Amino acid sequence: MSLKFEVLKKTGKTRLGKLHTKHGTIDTPAFMPVGTAGTVKAMMPESVASTGAQILLGNTYHLMLRPGADLVEKMGGLHKFMNWDKPILTDSGGFQVMSLSGLRKLTEEGVTFKSHVDGKKFFLTPEKSMEIQHKLDSNITMCLDECTPYPATYTQAQDSMKMSMRWAKRSKEAFVDREGYGLFGIQQGNVFEDLRQESADKLREIGFDGYAIGGLAVGEGQEEMFKVLDYAPSMLPEDKPRYLMGVGRPDDIVGAVLRGVDMFDCVMPTRSGRTAQAFTKYGTVNIRNARHREDHRPLAEGCSCPLCQNYSRAYLHHLQKCNEVLAIMLLTWHNIQYYQDLMKGLRNAIQEDKLQAFADEFYANQAKGDIDPL
Amino acid sequence: MSLKFEVLKKTGKTRLGKLHTKHGTIDTPAFMPVGTAGTVKAMMPESVASTGAQILLGNTYHLMLRPGADLVEKMGGLHKFMNWDKPILTDSGGFQVMSLSGLRKLTEEGVTFKSHVDGKKFFLTPEKSMEIQHKLDSNITMCLDECTPYPATYTQAQDSMKMSMRWAKRSKEAFVDREGYGLFGIQQGNVFEDLRQESADKLREIGFDGYAIGGLAVGEGQEEMFKVLDYAPSMLPEDKPRYLMGVGRPDDIVGAVLRGVDMFDCVMPTRSGRTAQAFTKYGTVNIRNARHREDHRPLAEGCSCPLCQNYSRAYLHHLQKCNEVLAIMLLTWHNIQYYQDLMKGLRNAIQEDKLQAFADEFYANQAKGDIDPL
Repeated sequence: MSLKFEVLKKTGKTRLGKLHTKHGTIDTPAFMPVGTAGTVKAMMPESVASTGAQILLGNTYHLMLRPGADLVEKMGGLHKFMNWDKPILTDSGGFQVMSLSGLRKLTEEGVTFKSHVDGKKFFLTPEKSMEIQHKLDSNITMCLDECTPYPATYTQAQDSMKMSMRWAKRSKEAFVDREGYGLFGIQQGNVFEDLRQESADKLREIGFDGYAIGGLAVGEGQEEMFKVLDYAPSMLPEDKPRYLMGVGRPDDIVGAVLRGVDMFDCVMPTRSGRTAQAFTKYGTVNIRNARHREDHRPLAEGCSCPLCQNYSRAYLHHLQKCNEVLAIMLLTWHNIQYYQDLMKGLRNAIQEDKLQAFADEFYANQAKGDIDPL
Repeated sequence: MSLKFEVLKKTGKTRLGKLHTKHGTIDTPAFMPVGTAGTVKAMMPESVASTGAQILLGNTYHLMLRPGADLVEKMGGLHKFMNWDKPILTDSGGFQVMSLSGLRKLTEEGVTFKSHVDGKKFFLTPEKSMEIQHKLDSNITMCLDECTPYPATYTQAQDSMKMSMRWAKRSKEAFVDREGYGLFGIQQGNVFEDLRQESADKLREIGFDGYAIGGLAVGEGQEEMFKVLDYAPSMLPEDKPRYLMGVGRPDDIVGAVLRGVDMFDCVMPTRSGRTAQAFTKYGTVNIRNARHREDHRPLAEGCSCPLCQNYSRAYLHHLQKCNEVLAIMLLTWHNIQYYQDLMKGLRNAIQEDKLQAFADEFYANQAKGDIDPL
């Protein structure tokens, strides 16, 4: 166990924590911007850091294809390669193999797939995934698992979870323990409570630095996801961080924090930055809408990002209409800032024993559903 | 005359100068990055300023189509709209009407054209161009002229130049003089020395704050251009800035500075930043080339841009191969930095009476033609 996690405070199921790694400390609850191919799309890493982000997620699948783990290792690891000196978490590659690559074949040994870039064949196993993430110098390595498709029958979910647990054991055995680096197990079991419990017990038996809740946000919807989150986090050890993979929208995150989750990642803020969708306290807004054409106001009052500090909605609208790169740069920055401010707000609220009031106000504002509520 | 220009020093035909505007001073010789539609593509304005750029060029044609001059005026002018508080020069719109728009019809009164964006019809006259540039709040307004096509017969060049001179007079009459703002005339006459002289005499008679050399860099090649620049700049007033429009490559600029030109603009550094072309002291290099794949070194030793300070060639190569936005952001920044450093080098060399030695070394390095000369 080589990552230290402190729980500073508890409110209901929610925890305020600090996760210590070789490259720095992460205040939890935390949101990790996604830096798929060694870059948070359209942002300089110093800009990402300026939003308050303390950890990035890198995608093992993308990085193993381009530029390759050996090259990243040769270049001094992912931190140095991409000029990000804070912590990095890498996923195992398994999820993207399922969602992006072609011609997959899954066996007990591992998964064979063809690269979506050039069709080249790869064979990924738990051991291989550990080796790649080691070469990337990832602070938080994720076990290779199978993300069970949704919907799945009980038997499918059970078989898939059991194999993931066998892979978790192999991942643990292959992982090279170092001070300031850690390995997270991933709970599976789909929407079946007894399978989630069985998975949690198995992971606890193997022992990890942190525990992810996998197989959610794959199409089941928020209601179904929250049902699982009502019981799943508390099945996992109290003294370790809990990470809900690939989640999510701001209201997903607030709901999950209330249910005891500590860490999140999602492409939503960056992807939305490339499709003119802005996150605001009153919900999302499409900046291409003609109502913004002559609007002097900043996108969001009180936001500290450069877009809101220095530009009008009219200017952003203009950039979007002209498909200017600066539109993507500014809006991505704003969206990441929004997510980080939300996490900071949550952490402050826990600290000040005002979490429920914070959440109530958050949901009331989101329900207004318009950037300029009446 | 509402722009003050100081010639601080002369070396041969070359001048070291300062041009004072309401929004700040421009050290000449100067290169103006192009901010076509109210943004230097893929750069934050503070990043542009950090390279040493003291003035930007905005394109009247693009801005009159989107978002429209009235809107920019309503938003407080182009400086405020795009968050650039230093000087701005706008072209007249004439050149882009010829190169980008559809269905043009040129008469003595003006030019009718169809927008390349939505096919909407516009009628641009010298008076209209002055009005638009006034609304944009441009510090340096350019007269509307016809950029004579190349090649042209003597008679074509003569007729075109004469009409441009009549338009120059109309531009002057329509221009609203204000302190810290100025109007530049544009010399035409193609490659014919007597026509260039006639044009210069006519412009001098009308009287402007500065004088551009127009109708070059339109396909005639560097040799032909330098032949014109051997005589054209000295036909223009000694005490006013001379601006070579749309030029150019670094070796064009050094040659033109030696021939007495003070100001330049070109899309080359920004456009190249979007096509993986990097400017270096040893010429251009395509960063997609496989030789950069495992190269630890920065693109250019001694360059102060973030790309060269914080990243390897291997990383930039990787970003380019993945078509990441950050590749465009970093390379554009580097290219603009290269151009500004070149201008600074030229200014320092004039100051220190080492211009010829500077130019000799510059051309010797460029002749090596490889980023890693033997």
